[in-house]
Amino acid sequence: MNESFTDISQIGEFGLIARLNEILQPYRDSLIVKGIGDDAAVYIPAEGKVQVVTTDALIEGIHFDLTYVSMRNLGWKSMVVNLSDLCAMLATPRYALITVAIPRKISVEMMENLYLGIKSACNEFNFALIGGDTTTTFGNMAISVTMIGEADKDIIPYRSGAKIGDYICVTGTLGLSYAGLKILLREKKKFLESEDKQNFKPNFEPFLKAIEKHLKPVPRFDIANKLKDLKVKVNSMIDISDGLSSDLLHICRQSNVGAEIYETSLPVDELVKKIAKDEFNEDYLPYVLNGGEDYELLFTVSESELKKLDPLYSDVKVIGRILDREQGIRLIREDKSEVDLEAGGWDHFKIKFEGR
Amino acid sequence: MNESFTDISQIGEFGLIARLNEILQPYRDSLIVKGIGDDAAVYIPAEGKVQVVTTDALIEGIHFDLTYVSMRNLGWKSMVVNLSDLCAMLATPRYALITVAIPRKISVEMMENLYLGIKSACNEFNFALIGGDTTTTFGNMAISVTMIGEADKDIIPYRSGAKIGDYICVTGTLGLSYAGLKILLREKKKFLESEDKQNFKPNFEPFLKAIEKHLKPVPRFDIANKLKDLKVKVNSMIDISDGLSSDLLHICRQSNVGAEIYETSLPVDELVKKIAKDEFNEDYLPYVLNGGEDYELLFTVSESELKKLDPLYSDVKVIGRILDREQGIRLIREDKSEVDLEAGGWDHFKIKFEGR
Repeated sequence: MNESFTDISQIGEFGLIARLNEILQPYRDSLIVKGIGDDAAVYIPAEGKVQVVTTDALIEGIHFDLTYVSMRNLGWKSMVVNLSDLCAMLATPRYALITVAIPRKISVEMMENLYLGIKSACNEFNFALIGGDTTTTFGNMAISVTMIGEADKDIIPYRSGAKIGDYICVTGTLGLSYAGLKILLREKKKFLESEDKQNFKPNFEPFLKAIEKHLKPVPRFDIANKLKDLKVKVNSMIDISDGLSSDLLHICRQSNVGAEIYETSLPVDELVKKIAKDEFNEDYLPYVLNGGEDYELLFTVSESELKKLDPLYSDVKVIGRILDREQGIRLIREDKSEVDLEAGGWDHFKIKFEGR
Repeated sequence: MNESFTDISQIGEFGLIARLNEILQPYRDSLIVKGIGDDAAVYIPAEGKVQVVTTDALIEGIHFDLTYVSMRNLGWKSMVVNLSDLCAMLATPRYALITVAIPRKISVEMMENLYLGIKSACNEFNFALIGGDTTTTFGNMAISVTMIGEADKDIIPYRSGAKIGDYICVTGTLGLSYAGLKILLREKKKFLESEDKQNFKPNFEPFLKAIEKHLKPVPRFDIANKLKDLKVKVNSMIDISDGLSSDLLHICRQSNVGAEIYETSLPVDELVKKIAKDEFNEDYLPYVLNGGEDYELLFTVSESELKKLDPLYSDVKVIGRILDREQGIRLIREDKSEVDLEAGGWDHFKIKFEGR
């Protein structure tokens, strides 16, 4: 660390809050009656809209590792994982609240960088942080965010809305975030095993696109907004945070339907294939199906809506169809063989507990 | 622990969520369009009201200690610390969201008890839990709650609204929660030092009122509702979570005023005096001024409103006056001597870090 290190105990909780709030100012929004600084924040809800709220936590050691995540990216990502949930409801983000449990190793400057990352997200996606609670902890760092958005009630797509015959669509490409994480973990391991830590240089350069996707994901409001502009009737939608398999299973279970997706249709960046094969000698398919954290959108539309997606052809791919429940949930391989999809994605409790 | 212990890894994150959600059902509210189970929850805001939102975290080792807090009380208290903030805005609670970072020592049954405590609060104060995120952690348990309420914009009292000449009022009595905490900590220490832990019996019986106030506080919606019914114009209000001194300082700073409070007027339960004197040989005054966590209401009203408080005489005491800023913020002792009030309350960063 080259920057200065001010222990939070030097300025206390109220001193810290004052410095962090300074970073967030000024924010002008005539609908905010009271922002940070009272027992609660107060805002006027937009007329004719419904309120859409979600909450997600990022825990050190589970969701992030301070050896390779900058505080700025962490602040950004803590917002994005929640923004992405609103995005999948076709909602517009408006307000966020955050709690941070801060271990002693975290300085005032590091907290300021966290808030600079938050501020970038506020500016980029046009919402305000209106509430927060900072507290110390003897354990690991824990960040919890609640995001509030507004939406038109009648266009919100739920997980339960998929209909037999729907086309299954996905934005962007899948697997990059997980490929980036694999590289980060490998270089961290090399660093820890290196005898000359001072001069250790991680090999990130060829993989930056994947690493960036993992460290600084972008919610797909660009697509969500176009779907609204084009008046596409989206029957069901979810953001891909757990992994394609898990998230498709969420839709199928809640919609009481089956599905098939085609390996040849899955949008995969060449870098994912390259990292899987050349760096880890692995099949890339699990990266795509179970990697998670891509924060792309998975959604279904009926056949009649498909044409409306034409202007989005470079960003949205059709990867399969919704079937009758009895037909199961399966992947059609390149060789036409069929594999039942299972929730191979991110289950902290199972993966992490068993891995200890 | 006498109850059964099911490791969360046996049922996984989705299994856990299913069991916890079962506890919360059924909840009927025609304004909730979508509750738990999608990317985000959706609700219709009440017409003509503003939205009031707050967030607060409870961290194991800082805010609670699982050696003496039951999961049920913890669930209750995680809601109450947030409810109390809404109460101090004269808002009506409507919806809550929670994230929990769960260490391995916590079983499925313990999480169910946590949710039973949450459910009690939902039933008692008429709000619904509409969002959540559970994740594992390698560190300590961390609970973060966001509470959403609704209020009439024009009656919300802010910290900044105190006016010179206002009477300073407080509900209930002060210091009990801290006195209860002192007993809990003493008995825990005795237990840890005891050579026969199997047969150790903590001495709680004479102090139950204080212990209960600490473990299962009650937000003062009873008073808040009466203030609304009686149409009392409340100029400023805050809930006493940090301690009377700290919270009065918040009001004075944000209102740009001074204040004096009178020792003889402070509402103190006899048990607080008894615990301070007989059990710890201490002055009870710091318990009252700096103890914190009483979750009583501190508010100010102008002289003309004072008469309206008459029906509340058993629950609300006048403890001082708002003064010009130049006159400082001070306590008038019984012997008429004056003491400047300082923020002696709960600052996690200063107290805890220095105490390590």
